[in-house]
Amino acid sequence: MSEPVIKSRQVQKHVNGISTEVVCTEFSNYIFIVLTQYGKIGTLISVIPDSQSKDISTQSFSTKVLLGKDEPLTHVCAKNLATFVSQEAGNRPVLLGLALKDSSIDAIKQIKEIIKSCSNLLWY
Amino acid sequence: MSEPVIKSRQVQKHVNGISTEVVCTEFSNYIFIVLTQYGKIGTLISVIPDSQSKDISTQSFSTKVLLGKDEPLTHVCAKNLATFVSQEAGNRPVLLGLALKDSSIDAIKQIKEIIKSCSNLLWY
Repeated sequence: MSEPVIKSRQVQKHVNGISTEVVCTEFSNYIFIVLTQYGKIGTLISVIPDSQSKDISTQSFSTKVLLGKDEPLTHVCAKNLATFVSQEAGNRPVLLGLALKDSSIDAIKQIKEIIKSCSNLLWY
Repeated sequence: MSEPVIKSRQVQKHVNGISTEVVCTEFSNYIFIVLTQYGKIGTLISVIPDSQSKDISTQSFSTKVLLGKDEPLTHVCAKNLATFVSQEAGNRPVLLGLALKDSSIDAIKQIKEIIKSCSNLLWY
């Protein structure tokens, strides 16, 4: 059988003592990422590049909560966590599931590293 | 390391000559299923049991399109495809990505069998 079109990778690590799972799945039109410390899919947010700008530094993103509580902090976290993945994937939109017990700046920083290691498994 | 909390399984088969991929991922509060003949995540639909009725025969479901075109046929397909998975998973809601080239009754029937084989890999 040919290699599956859809690639999915999973990484589990501890962030400030909390077991954290990251699942990255690559679709042709979306990167699907779940970050969970509850085993839940959590709040589902779409993070979509506003335009096909080739200049990464000026690229802006629109976030929309599709499922779950729509809070300002969720949009900030989602942008912070998903932007670099979108850019690495050639400005592909990201669908992000977020279920975090700890969303401190320090935790977000560590989680970003886990996403990096997980998404790198997709590309390389 | 302990077994990952999130289990994901993937099956690829041909349906009427079209390569069809099914990805099933089990979260504690949702079963996430993507059925794709395009490699895309497609239309994203939530299929949620209306009540915690213990009688499967009277269980009804609410469908909502979260991403993509909201068409009546999409709701019918989603209910048809996701209901049995939800029931097998103890009435858990299903998040369904649907990107089908062929959504004839015959194709849906075959795709249902693929979902069954894929979700069975999750439970057993």
